[in-house]
Amino acid sequence: MKRRGEFDLIAQVFAPLAIGAPGAFALGDDAATVATAPGHELVVTTDAMVRGVHFDQRTAPADVGRKLLRVNLSDLAAKGAEPLAYVLTTAWSPDVTQEWIEGFASGLKEDQAAFGIHLVGGDTVAAPTDLILSVTIFGQVPSGTMIRRAGARAGDDIYVSGTVGDACLGLQVAEGTLALPPEHEKALRERLDCPTPRVELGRALRGVAHAAIDVSDGLLGDLDHVCEQSHLGADVRLGQVPLSVSARLALAKVPGEDKRMLTFGDDYELLFTAAAADRARIDQIAATTGVPVTRIGVMRPGQGVRVLDAAGVELRFETLGYRHF
Amino acid sequence: MKRRGEFDLIAQVFAPLAIGAPGAFALGDDAATVATAPGHELVVTTDAMVRGVHFDQRTAPADVGRKLLRVNLSDLAAKGAEPLAYVLTTAWSPDVTQEWIEGFASGLKEDQAAFGIHLVGGDTVAAPTDLILSVTIFGQVPSGTMIRRAGARAGDDIYVSGTVGDACLGLQVAEGTLALPPEHEKALRERLDCPTPRVELGRALRGVAHAAIDVSDGLLGDLDHVCEQSHLGADVRLGQVPLSVSARLALAKVPGEDKRMLTFGDDYELLFTAAAADRARIDQIAATTGVPVTRIGVMRPGQGVRVLDAAGVELRFETLGYRHF
Repeated sequence: MKRRGEFDLIAQVFAPLAIGAPGAFALGDDAATVATAPGHELVVTTDAMVRGVHFDQRTAPADVGRKLLRVNLSDLAAKGAEPLAYVLTTAWSPDVTQEWIEGFASGLKEDQAAFGIHLVGGDTVAAPTDLILSVTIFGQVPSGTMIRRAGARAGDDIYVSGTVGDACLGLQVAEGTLALPPEHEKALRERLDCPTPRVELGRALRGVAHAAIDVSDGLLGDLDHVCEQSHLGADVRLGQVPLSVSARLALAKVPGEDKRMLTFGDDYELLFTAAAADRARIDQIAATTGVPVTRIGVMRPGQGVRVLDAAGVELRFETLGYRHF
Repeated sequence: MKRRGEFDLIAQVFAPLAIGAPGAFALGDDAATVATAPGHELVVTTDAMVRGVHFDQRTAPADVGRKLLRVNLSDLAAKGAEPLAYVLTTAWSPDVTQEWIEGFASGLKEDQAAFGIHLVGGDTVAAPTDLILSVTIFGQVPSGTMIRRAGARAGDDIYVSGTVGDACLGLQVAEGTLALPPEHEKALRERLDCPTPRVELGRALRGVAHAAIDVSDGLLGDLDHVCEQSHLGADVRLGQVPLSVSARLALAKVPGEDKRMLTFGDDYELLFTAAAADRARIDQIAATTGVPVTRIGVMRPGQGVRVLDAAGVELRFETLGYRHF
C-alpha cells in the first residue's frame, strides 16, 4: 500500500479535522466527549457507504467524503436536529491510495465548514477487499421536540422538499445510458454525487411537522416507513410530485421513468406531514428557508402507500423502494 | 443469500435488542436519543472488527458479537465511563448466513444484559466481499472526570490489571502452533475470544488514576501512546508484568515468547498511572473491584518506553505494538 501508516494517517490527515472541537482531544485519546446545550437532548444516527454499492470508482474521493457527511446530515435534518459532531470509521482495502484518502478528507473538511460540525473520533482499520466508510453523527434538539416517523395523523398533508428523481437520472447519466444537454447532465450528476441535506428546513419544521423522514431509499418506500410507524396509509398524486427541469427533459425522452424515480432514492429531500390547517405556516417556512416544498398527497386511515394518476386511478408498483438485501 | 431481507432482519433480529431503551424507538426511526444523568457528560468511542483481521471463520458468531461489545466497553472502561448504549453498523458479505447473524445477535444480547446496555440504532448494508462490524458506544462520566491518555506525571507508578499476553498465546492455540493441557488451552482461547472489559475498575479509578488506556494494540505500544500524550517516558520491568498460570506454562515451552506477548495486544486490560502516594488506595480499589492490579514500572521525564530486565538492562524491541497498516 502506497500510503501512510495508521497513526501517521490519523495524525496528519484526520486530526486536522478535529481542530476546534475540544471534546475530540485532537484524536489523541480513545474517546471523545459530546456536549449538548442546556435543555437539549442528543440525537444520534449512523449511515455507512460501501464502494460498489453507494459509490464507485467514478466518484471523486472528495465527493465521497461530502456525500458521507450529507447522507448523515440528512437523517439529522429529518429529525429537526442541529448538527454537532461526528465519528468516522474507515475500513480501507489495500488498493486505496494515500491520494484517495486525502481527497476523501478534503471533502469532509469542506462540508464540516459548510455545516458547522467537527470530527471528534473514530476507528481506522484495514479490510481485505472492500472499502467501507461509516459515520455516526450527533445533533441536538430542545428536549422532547425530535420529529419522528411515527406521529402522522389521518388527514395530514404530505409534503416533499426540492425535487425527486434527479439522483436516479444522474446515475443513468454517469453510466452513459441517458444523454442530455451538458448543463442538464451536470445538474443531475451533482444531485447524485452531492445531495443537499435540508438541515435548516428540518429545524424550522420542529413543532409543525407531525412526522418526517428523509428520502434515501425511495419516496414511496420512505413514505411507507412513515405509514407503518404512524399506523396509517397514504395517497400520493403522481402528477404533484415535484420534478426538476432536467428531470422533465429526461422524462420526455424516456416516458414511464417517473415510476422508477419515485422508488430509486438517494434524493435526500425531506418528506413530512402536517395538519391541513398549517398550510400557510408551511408556505412561510419554505419561503424563510428558501427551500421549495410541495404538497403531494394526504395521510388516511388504513395502511400502505397508494399512488394515483390525474384521474384518481391507482398505479401499480412492483417495489416501493431500495433494499440493501 | 439464504437470509432475511434488510427490514425483516432489523425487525426480527435486531429490534429485540433495543427493548428497554426508550430513546431507540424500537429501531423504527432514523435516529435515537441518548440521555446522560444530570451533571454528567457523554463519552463516545468506536471500534470496528473485520473478518480476516480481528476474527476469522473459527470464531463462533456469538463470540464475535460479545467481543465487538467488549472491545468497545474496554475503551469506555479506560475513560472511567459508565456504559449506556450503542449503535451498530454491519456490512454483510454475501456468504454470511441467517444463522450466523442470529448467533452474532445472541452474543450481543448476552453481553447487553451482562453490562446493562442497549442497542439504540445503526445501519445495515450489503458488502461485496468483506464482513465488517462496527460499534459506536456511549457512556457517561460526572462532567470533567473522564480519565485521559494525557495526564500522567513524572514519578507516577504504572499499573496494569489482570494478566498480559494470554490472547497472544490463545491465537497460537487456535492456530495449532501451541499445545498445552486442555484446561490451559481453553483458558487462553477464552481470553482471546471473550476478553473482560474492566468497567468497574475504570469507574473506581476516576479521580485516582492520572492517565489510562486499555491494552488493545500491545502493552508497550499502548503505554507509548500514554507517553506521547503525556509528554513523558516510561520504564517497565519485564519481570513485573503479570502473567497467567497458563501463560507461564506456555513460556516454559517457548522461551522468549514474553517479548511478543508484550506487543501483541488484544488483552483489554487497563494500563494506568497513579501517584506513588496512592499505592494503598490502588490496592484498596483492586480489592473492592476484585480485579488484580500489578505495578509494572514508572513514568519518567523524557520520551519512549524502555523495558528493563531484572538486572536493569534495557531490552530491545523491534515493534512496540500492533498496527493495522
